[in-house]
Amino acid sequence: MVISVIGIGLIGGSMAISLKENGFAERIIGVDVSQENLDKAVRRRLIDDDASLDDAIAQSDILILSTPVDAMKKLLPEILSKLDKQVVLDVGSTKQELNAIVEHHPNRGRFVATHPMAGTEYSGPEAAIPDLFNGKCTVIVDEHLSDADALEKVRDLYTSMDCSITYMDAQSHDIHTAYVSHISHISSFALALTVLEKESNEKRIFELAGSGFGSTVRLAKSSPDMWVPIFRQNRDNVLDVLDEHINQLARFRSLLIKKDYDRFYELIEKSNSIRKIIDKQ
Amino acid sequence: MVISVIGIGLIGGSMAISLKENGFAERIIGVDVSQENLDKAVRRRLIDDDASLDDAIAQSDILILSTPVDAMKKLLPEILSKLDKQVVLDVGSTKQELNAIVEHHPNRGRFVATHPMAGTEYSGPEAAIPDLFNGKCTVIVDEHLSDADALEKVRDLYTSMDCSITYMDAQSHDIHTAYVSHISHISSFALALTVLEKESNEKRIFELAGSGFGSTVRLAKSSPDMWVPIFRQNRDNVLDVLDEHINQLARFRSLLIKKDYDRFYELIEKSNSIRKIIDKQ
Repeated sequence: MVISVIGIGLIGGSMAISLKENGFAERIIGVDVSQENLDKAVRRRLIDDDASLDDAIAQSDILILSTPVDAMKKLLPEILSKLDKQVVLDVGSTKQELNAIVEHHPNRGRFVATHPMAGTEYSGPEAAIPDLFNGKCTVIVDEHLSDADALEKVRDLYTSMDCSITYMDAQSHDIHTAYVSHISHISSFALALTVLEKESNEKRIFELAGSGFGSTVRLAKSSPDMWVPIFRQNRDNVLDVLDEHINQLARFRSLLIKKDYDRFYELIEKSNSIRKIIDKQ
Repeated sequence: MVISVIGIGLIGGSMAISLKENGFAERIIGVDVSQENLDKAVRRRLIDDDASLDDAIAQSDILILSTPVDAMKKLLPEILSKLDKQVVLDVGSTKQELNAIVEHHPNRGRFVATHPMAGTEYSGPEAAIPDLFNGKCTVIVDEHLSDADALEKVRDLYTSMDCSITYMDAQSHDIHTAYVSHISHISSFALALTVLEKESNEKRIFELAGSGFGSTVRLAKSSPDMWVPIFRQNRDNVLDVLDEHINQLARFRSLLIKKDYDRFYELIEKSNSIRKIIDKQ
């Protein structure tokens, strides 16, 4: 199988490593707006060679669209218009806008919308790592809109990387990801700013910051180039969750003001039940 | 050296492991209100034997007070009144209230207030792990109030565990820890509640939650028995930081409402500079 990765960063690059390593891909072609990224990707052996988008489409069985989600809205209709029997899948963190754009495209069936639930706070081809998707879950969105053979190929691709697969419509996907991914990022960005703006003494932060702080603000290292387009596309859902998160913080605040430590204790106990979810991971 | 650990949980238990392993302690005595914890600690070989508080004081060179911070306020004056040339140190996350309580105690000089900046989200003797303090920073608070020989012993104790040492007054300590530790916990508790209350479908959270979510809510597994006394003692500082954190989240909210994605981008970029602090760790 020849596979093109369009946008050779953390996600595309990590998929390139896995799919070549496990033999699913015989050859990986890289496409990117940045020649520097392509050169890095060749040097790191993430890709076998680079090509123009047109050449990549002509030579590939499967195209993986792994650019920031705003670029996908431009690229996906263009790719769909140029392909024949090839399959294109995206790996973006938002789905409603993208799926709406290609809803009536004559080649819509060749597209499979997916979202592998894996990542790190780093970006670019230098951030690509082996086994990023190993044991993780992938969402396939609105699978009934894809041709049966295209869906089958994409399932095989994820299964080859040891991913489990779950199915969702675009609207549910965007609501759920606002909760389990997008809000975590805003929370980390805001926490980093809180500490940076109030703690003018950086040496002190550095000395004192334990692993708890590091864990909570880790996502604040994430790239705005990737995340602003996600927040733009999922604005309404993110706003809902952000309102709820601010409300929860305001509850803690109000209990501190009232010195109601019994209720404060109850809230912490309730939040502890997140254990049963994250400890299974 | 004979060392007693009073409160044999995550911190006390991990210190017991390190100090025995590196030869600083010949013998470790455990004291705890819970006989179950003491039995666990003996079975896990965290301590050599358990004893009553009075026996522990009589037999020890150094006493490590590692209970929740509310219990410390009762125990520390009691211990100080009973000791002679022994040294007692605490390892709590708040300092102003505790130091005020023993300010005029005739044996104040035998006490060294410390805060090793290390921990995990787990608690109890079963959570104790080797090397928890290795390479971490310890704060020694109001060191001028301790006798020179007591301070020296406590420095040696931390150095033996490969901890670096920094010095601070109690007020500064409590402000700094509100920023780099206490707020992270409230943020995680609130994030866990946000997701748990809005996402009624737990199976979905579990499937979709990636490592980013896990990292941001990890601290929400922390024990209310340990944390409520900390928030109670550091209430005013925590309220200040919590207000600032809510303000930062409200800024992101307002930019989303106005669809001001350029400014949103700038805020994320600014928060990214947390890299230079946490990447050094």
